[in-house]
Amino acid sequence: MDRLAMIAFGGNALLRAGQKGTFEEQLANVEATCGHLCHLVRRGYGIVIAHGNGPQVGNGLLRQEAGKQVYGLEAMPMDFCGAETQGSIAYLIETALERVLRREGLDRRIVSLVTRVEVSASDPGFANPTKPVGPYYASVPAGGAAVYKLDPAGRGYRKVVASPQPLRIANIDLVERLAREGYIVVTAGGGGIPVAGPEHRGVEAVIDKDLASALAAAEIKADEFYILTDVPKVYINFRKPGEKALDRLSVEEARRYLAEGQFAEGSMAPKVRAAIRFIEGGGKECVITEAGQLGNPACGTRIYK
Amino acid sequence: MDRLAMIAFGGNALLRAGQKGTFEEQLANVEATCGHLCHLVRRGYGIVIAHGNGPQVGNGLLRQEAGKQVYGLEAMPMDFCGAETQGSIAYLIETALERVLRREGLDRRIVSLVTRVEVSASDPGFANPTKPVGPYYASVPAGGAAVYKLDPAGRGYRKVVASPQPLRIANIDLVERLAREGYIVVTAGGGGIPVAGPEHRGVEAVIDKDLASALAAAEIKADEFYILTDVPKVYINFRKPGEKALDRLSVEEARRYLAEGQFAEGSMAPKVRAAIRFIEGGGKECVITEAGQLGNPACGTRIYK
Repeated sequence: MDRLAMIAFGGNALLRAGQKGTFEEQLANVEATCGHLCHLVRRGYGIVIAHGNGPQVGNGLLRQEAGKQVYGLEAMPMDFCGAETQGSIAYLIETALERVLRREGLDRRIVSLVTRVEVSASDPGFANPTKPVGPYYASVPAGGAAVYKLDPAGRGYRKVVASPQPLRIANIDLVERLAREGYIVVTAGGGGIPVAGPEHRGVEAVIDKDLASALAAAEIKADEFYILTDVPKVYINFRKPGEKALDRLSVEEARRYLAEGQFAEGSMAPKVRAAIRFIEGGGKECVITEAGQLGNPACGTRIYK
Repeated sequence: MDRLAMIAFGGNALLRAGQKGTFEEQLANVEATCGHLCHLVRRGYGIVIAHGNGPQVGNGLLRQEAGKQVYGLEAMPMDFCGAETQGSIAYLIETALERVLRREGLDRRIVSLVTRVEVSASDPGFANPTKPVGPYYASVPAGGAAVYKLDPAGRGYRKVVASPQPLRIANIDLVERLAREGYIVVTAGGGGIPVAGPEHRGVEAVIDKDLASALAAAEIKADEFYILTDVPKVYINFRKPGEKALDRLSVEEARRYLAEGQFAEGSMAPKVRAAIRFIEGGGKECVITEAGQLGNPACGTRIYK
């Protein structure tokens, strides 16, 4: 394959608002998203997929807590739970994508890698963790070094972890090679399993999946980088007077809008930052759009240098 | 790498009797097992690792049940839980093995694949499921098509699933290629995620990990196939008068001893059957032994044609 496309699946590729999150629901959601990749497959792109795991790892952490309460099981750390979601979500993607390819008469093989991603142990995020994860507690659990913060909505205390910068994605050279051979490669699920230090020890942290995807896209020298979300374009004044969908957005404008607070944290802001990171890493253009727009040449918002 | 070795990690590579199963315990166990692979690395073998997941998927199923009770979460099917353990156990193996290689000054890369394994939807196991999995219930849960059986020890009803024959391991050609290039490849964890039919739909079943390893070993044309367990050799009259450790065992003798019931079901019998399957699939010799014996040229019981 001469050209590579990196696709970051957003949360709604897996789970949609109002759904209960059954296996069949998640599989149907992934299948719908994968259906929109066929354009790229037909056009001969090598394809690499990364995906989020927010609700899945959240449920995993709740199940760890529940397993401790009901059966006295040892609770596993967050890096372990993240690794679990790489296995299960890759399995969902492989099943759904293979079904789509078969239906469309397309012949591509899929391979999914368990992926560790290096972060710095001295990332500033560790000194000031901000990402809430796992169950709510009535009081701060005793023991351990974890940081807990009171939820602003009063639902209780919740562990907060760092969201460090991804520095290096394990086996990314192999990912590129396999994608160029024609494999559809699933990697860096949930932003990757965060590891730090010379021994690559797991750390309790959440790597932003769009930032990890941007790093992966730059490393594999992706010709196209799509960040999928649940709106067709990036907006300024989103859901306010003067709302405007953006067709194109330069890195310079993107930085200005970010500074103005035009893009919501935890939603569009990290996607725009990931697009900037990709372009700073040597990428040409990043498209933020919804999966259903992928076949449309004018789709989404194109962020460019 | 001219020569390939396939290694099936036994349950005690991960979790040992009397342990609570913390992350650190499991990591230390895997590190001890991986330490014994250095002989093979130094001798220039390409290495493929498969592993069991019995206690891990068992705990996963308990956590699904507990998550439903405590937080009202949807319980995921067994194939999904198996996929989770492929992610988490591969992460443990990568972490432990990399630490060992670094300490020993050995330079090898590790890659772990999420692996589906095809079984036949008409495998006789599905008509007569025998493998108990998941929580005990006071009465048979309502709804669903699952089969429950009363536990002989009176602990309650438990779901039983099929243990179908593995027929085809996804991406096994890629596994062979990467191992020959020098990657240490982790694949077919827990016997693989069982899928059946033209659409490769997940099924609730447990593929015996030794049988899946035997199939993998035959497919990659492994020069050596080690099934690791917690005893140094295969015994006849095990823990009885006339107990005898076997240095060598022909396929013919192995079949006879199996028919005599010399090997315990759920323990040595499936390992001996896996050895037979490997040799019938074209393999030369299979060694059943404990990890600590791997550097010893006279280690274990050698099953041969």
